Amino acid sequence: MFRFLTAGESHGPGLTVIVEGIPRGAPARKAAIDADLRRRQQGYGRGGRMKLETDAVEIRGGVRGGLATGAPVALFIANRDFENWREVMDPVHPPAGGKKIIRHPRPGHADLAGALKYATRDARDVLERASARETGARVAAGSLAKQLLAAAAGIEIRSCVTALGGVRLAGEPDWAAMAACDASPFRVTEPALEEKMKRAVDAARVAGDTLGGVIHVEARGVMPGLGSHIQWDQKLDGRIAQALMSIHAVKGVELGDGIAAAGSPGSRVHDEIRYDKKNRRYARPTNRAGGLEGGITNGEPLVARLYLKPIPTLMRPLMSVDFETKEAVNAQKERSDTCVVPAAGVIAEAMLALALAPALLEKFGGDSLASLQANLAAEAARLREL
Amino acid sequence: MFRFLTAGESHGPGLTVIVEGIPRGAPARKAAIDADLRRRQQGYGRGGRMKLETDAVEIRGGVRGGLATGAPVALFIANRDFENWREVMDPVHPPAGGKKIIRHPRPGHADLAGALKYATRDARDVLERASARETGARVAAGSLAKQLLAAAAGIEIRSCVTALGGVRLAGEPDWAAMAACDASPFRVTEPALEEKMKRAVDAARVAGDTLGGVIHVEARGVMPGLGSHIQWDQKLDGRIAQALMSIHAVKGVELGDGIAAAGSPGSRVHDEIRYDKKNRRYARPTNRAGGLEGGITNGEPLVARLYLKPIPTLMRPLMSVDFETKEAVNAQKERSDTCVVPAAGVIAEAMLALALAPALLEKFGGDSLASLQANLAAEAARLREL
Amino acid sequence: MFRFLTAGESHGPGLTVIVEGIPRGAPARKAAIDADLRRRQQGYGRGGRMKLETDAVEIRGGVRGGLATGAPVALFIANRDFENWREVMDPVHPPAGGKKIIRHPRPGHADLAGALKYATRDARDVLERASARETGARVAAGSLAKQLLAAAAGIEIRSCVTALGGVRLAGEPDWAAMAACDASPFRVTEPALEEKMKRAVDAARVAGDTLGGVIHVEARGVMPGLGSHIQWDQKLDGRIAQALMSIHAVKGVELGDGIAAAGSPGSRVHDEIRYDKKNRRYARPTNRAGGLEGGITNGEPLVARLYLKPIPTLMRPLMSVDFETKEAVNAQKERSDTCVVPAAGVIAEAMLALALAPALLEKFGGDSLASLQANLAAEAARLREL
Amino acid sequence: MFRFLTAGESHGPGLTVIVEGIPRGAPARKAAIDADLRRRQQGYGRGGRMKLETDAVEIRGGVRGGLATGAPVALFIANRDFENWREVMDPVHPPAGGKKIIRHPRPGHADLAGALKYATRDARDVLERASARETGARVAAGSLAKQLLAAAAGIEIRSCVTALGGVRLAGEPDWAAMAACDASPFRVTEPALEEKMKRAVDAARVAGDTLGGVIHVEARGVMPGLGSHIQWDQKLDGRIAQALMSIHAVKGVELGDGIAAAGSPGSRVHDEIRYDKKNRRYARPTNRAGGLEGGITNGEPLVARLYLKPIPTLMRPLMSVDFETKEAVNAQKERSDTCVVPAAGVIAEAMLALALAPALLEKFGGDSLASLQANLAAEAARLREL
Repeated sequence: MFRFLTAGESHGPGLTVIVEGIPRGAPARKAAIDADLRRRQQGYGRGGRMKLETDAVEIRGGVRGGLATGAPVALFIANRDFENWREVMDPVHPPAGGKKIIRHPRPGHADLAGALKYATRDARDVLERASARETGARVAAGSLAKQLLAAAAGIEIRSCVTALGGVRLAGEPDWAAMAACDASPFRVTEPALEEKMKRAVDAARVAGDTLGGVIHVEARGVMPGLGSHIQWDQKLDGRIAQALMSIHAVKGVELGDGIAAAGSPGSRVHDEIRYDKKNRRYARPTNRAGGLEGGITNGEPLVARLYLKPIPTLMRPLMSVDFETKEAVNAQKERSDTCVVPAAGVIAEAMLALALAPALLEKFGGDSLASLQANLAAEAARLREL
Repeated sequence: MFRFLTAGESHGPGLTVIVEGIPRGAPARKAAIDADLRRRQQGYGRGGRMKLETDAVEIRGGVRGGLATGAPVALFIANRDFENWREVMDPVHPPAGGKKIIRHPRPGHADLAGALKYATRDARDVLERASARETGARVAAGSLAKQLLAAAAGIEIRSCVTALGGVRLAGEPDWAAMAACDASPFRVTEPALEEKMKRAVDAARVAGDTLGGVIHVEARGVMPGLGSHIQWDQKLDGRIAQALMSIHAVKGVELGDGIAAAGSPGSRVHDEIRYDKKNRRYARPTNRAGGLEGGITNGEPLVARLYLKPIPTLMRPLMSVDFETKEAVNAQKERSDTCVVPAAGVIAEAMLALALAPALLEKFGGDSLASLQANLAAEAARLREL
Repeated sequence: MFRFLTAGESHGPGLTVIVEGIPRGAPARKAAIDADLRRRQQGYGRGGRMKLETDAVEIRGGVRGGLATGAPVALFIANRDFENWREVMDPVHPPAGGKKIIRHPRPGHADLAGALKYATRDARDVLERASARETGARVAAGSLAKQLLAAAAGIEIRSCVTALGGVRLAGEPDWAAMAACDASPFRVTEPALEEKMKRAVDAARVAGDTLGGVIHVEARGVMPGLGSHIQWDQKLDGRIAQALMSIHAVKGVELGDGIAAAGSPGSRVHDEIRYDKKNRRYARPTNRAGGLEGGITNGEPLVARLYLKPIPTLMRPLMSVDFETKEAVNAQKERSDTCVVPAAGVIAEAMLALALAPALLEKFGGDSLASLQANLAAEAARLREL
Repeated sequence: MFRFLTAGESHGPGLTVIVEGIPRGAPARKAAIDADLRRRQQGYGRGGRMKLETDAVEIRGGVRGGLATGAPVALFIANRDFENWREVMDPVHPPAGGKKIIRHPRPGHADLAGALKYATRDARDVLERASARETGARVAAGSLAKQLLAAAAGIEIRSCVTALGGVRLAGEPDWAAMAACDASPFRVTEPALEEKMKRAVDAARVAGDTLGGVIHVEARGVMPGLGSHIQWDQKLDGRIAQALMSIHAVKGVELGDGIAAAGSPGSRVHDEIRYDKKNRRYARPTNRAGGLEGGITNGEPLVARLYLKPIPTLMRPLMSVDFETKEAVNAQKERSDTCVVPAAGVIAEAMLALALAPALLEKFGGDSLASLQANLAAEAARLREL
């Protein structure tokens, strides 16, 4: 059974991850995890902290010599500035307190909802965990899932930005160009967009404002038959939607041409079915369904789009309320990115991988990479005969 | 622990539902379930079968005299035309077979993906369960969840259609009008839209085509603090997204102003925080977040939108392939609705309720309605003092 | 994913079961389920109700012509005397009430603990669901699991009584004799025990007393590698213990020679390892571990023993308290079996099967019986080469 | 939702734990965790390694100043001798290998079953995780659960040894004496047993043999109503059985007088019900049920017994097989304790706490210690009125 949990705060000792269910012998390379962690820290529009961080993972269990042992994998990503925060965040000794209490909840963050839930007038405990810092842990877990998907089944996941601050890519992003988009500070596949996006970000920064955008994430090499129509919570479309909507700032998720499809006639929405006799597989001239029909992968590329709101911490802060006095105040500022959309694609890749990996193992079993691969090969042969 | 499973096929004996976790003493009224089942069968654009069905539930466990006992609730919705299908669908005796085999998978349905997954050249077993008939079971389960939410916490859920076949409601639907929209054959809050939608559906029917649309679903009376930011799978935004995306034909889910927000600056996206001294509660002049921040309810109305593709069974069928010969054929026709968008709101209400009910019980516990209500009242008092 | 839920009360309309995760094409025969239901109703020492019942299952979903479709399987077992109880148990109309209220909780039953939990002074709602009648639902679900295990992997499960009312089998029961023990009114493998057990039951009945006993349940043909040591809740020993301890009246569970082993030196407890060159498999001259090491099946027969307390409803009732007056009273009587130990083996078989089936599917995947069998065959070949 | 995962190997960098669901404000003290870790390392009969270890926990998330924040708690217990094993266990660089390969699986361990499951001829990866070292992680997690249970509800858990190597305590252990039994090298409540147990252990050591025993674990202060009879997997007896049976070497679990009860007449097994008018609570003169009826706590002390087999690594090794040659060999030796029964009680306390904590939160909810305590107090008041 594939599952994972993460723990850790933004300014605490670090992020802890346990990922269970990786078959014995699957690659679990530190270098690949670190590369994804670095990718998450890139992108135009970030404030100062990202330069500080340069995350690196320590593998603390479940892996020997870069290969999974079958045991749960433990990861740790140290926070390099914890020592500066120890006085406030020490797990053992009471916090020195005082100046670091968050009495002015920030609109758009978990601050107020979390403070009400957890019955506190200090949003510090909430925001430390609600911070997007936590996505570093997901990216590390997702890197393990990506390594597994690639090694076992040749599944590859890519992402890019298709809109940022109102600047949009026309049409669909090119799969090959997505492989190279890490070189772009906006992670776009179309270089012509970069200058426009830069202007949008710069203008927003000057205005003390922030920007959102749209991420395209896609998996290729996905075999038919992951997920199932038989029960609401087995439908892979729902499971992917949960995984993606759980990412910070994501407020909309679309599969295939979902949103446009709602306004189009059926004759222009559904993907006709062909048979590719040479490769003995079913194929589609179009992929408006985004690779999912009835909550099951259909063998076409799996395509999702995520709609991200602008990050809520503005330099020109919004109105809030003081927890103690209940008087109107300016919302507390905690960090200063203008736009995190470029990095979000890396997180989306991780969450998509973390949704696919359990579905793969549910269908094919496999305690070792070898047995998983054998089961996959047998299925591929069966499909050619079906 | 609140959980539910459903079973049953489109032309089998009926739909079976087990819902577990309803506190003792909560209302579990057959009349309310039947009313929701009937609402699911309404709407302009349906073909012949809906008239035939007129679903009614039998309660078979967990309820005495209209009140939950605390035990799992068992529901059964008989299929009235099973006897006509017994030869094909008999659970005990081998199907007579022959003419009812589905050899031509229909684009946009689970047919092909499911046949490949379950290793068959007859899509019958797939489509019988993948059919939207299954949503009848969800509506029944959801009615129980709605009865609980209303009785325990005064939470009310409403829905309406905001777009259908390209005809759109301008602005947000009115909450009061949503209560009355069952009277509209399109479940719209603005009567002026009906004539345009009728023309769109009629035109599509003539053309042998189908239409999709957009559903608005909203819950009011939701207290702050459901869901949590602390772990990816505890975030209520993700759990709601899963619940809604798992509905047939839904390909996009949006919370609050999610999709528009992706193109707006942060200063116009986030909801400022006020304090309502009279009622001693935090309040917002706007609700662009749709009632969720950090994956936690913030006390504002919970608002989601669902984007539905047109139903995939066209009278002018799309191209497909014969499972046996692999030759190109017209896709099999199985039913003949033109548009099911109006009914989808009823299903969306059910799924939203089924996402909220477990979150409510996780936070407040309560084996009986009385203890749940007491815990809710104590929390409300705490929040006023916080 | 294999999972199941049951619902239904002792005197309600019937028992409902949903079993999910049975691969397409696996046998799901009504006759086999009915046979197990009948076996559960046998045994010397039962009171009057068993003759009345003669349970039979209706399959209501997930099965066509005796074969699973891959969809959730719905089962219903009607209660034949519901009409006599409708006035008390009607789900829709308020119970007529009065004389059927249970104000005197019975020691050893869920009555008091359940009434306190669910905040009621009428234990009726508790005992209706807590009744061992519910095990009929488990036996039906377990029959599906047994059919799957046998068809896919040749796993066979048998049980027998090894002690009853102080009369004990010397040594281990014979596997072949276990196949025939349904013919014995005590489900023993050693006919010489029957007369002694009969005398014990008859004496207890005369004394208004009840008897417990010990069940041996065993699975053969279990391949190595089910369950895992990697996480506490993945260990199959724990999962089997949960499944068996959850059976009514079971207060102790033992794997292999567990209880004796606690008093023996290690040199006489552990099973030495041999290699059977002819069959190219590891083997053990002894099986004191009961087929499980480190929470993983080791290829030897899986052996468990269940310790059942006497049923708590005595004809010579124990002291209790009136819910209303708090005065001492005799506990209410609800039924009058003297001993249900013989039937418990049938339930133990079901629960063991329901613990093994998910472990099998987790390891081997398989959406269809064919693919599951192929994955199993590949694993068997791999093991011979290992 | 309370849940936890652990990771880490016996000779790897350390043990990692994530515990989720501890309410905000609950105590999460390092000193208490360290105290339990130390208790796990005591006891007569241990070999050399225990002196080496002296475990201490690092809290890495979810706690500030000794109080839970509501976020997942991350713990890390470093292995002090990892540097000596780095060559073999390094997660990043391939193991140097050679002499540390385990080719001779040890009877009674996970070695063979795990090697077959994970398809390897080196049991190293299996035994590193299957080692009882992993119970250190459970004890740390369990300490958090115990701190929660005590602070929220006054629930206290104690354990002791009631049999070791055939030396048995007569009667039930005394609750007060259990509090002091850590002072005993055998963790017994009856000092007179120590000398006999010492002789048994010494004799076994000389003989190159090992010893098992019996643990009594008990929780007091448990309110009625945890767990439920309504579904097999909600019954707390089953959940406790799983938790306890998943402990290394445990092969039998008994609740209350379970095993003796199987041979006694019902009139001497069930606990009559009284009403204590002064304290307005139901009470029992006896507690043979061990505090559980119908899978629900009944307000009496929760009592379980665990039967542990002798540890399987003998100095006079058992016969095994070489993975490569398939020839008979002596089983590999990996460590040299004679008896670990005394420490097992500490692990049993942890696992019992980890079974009770989720049941408590399911019933009472509570995101903060304050709200949980309020809900508990309200329930206590309700029970007095019931």
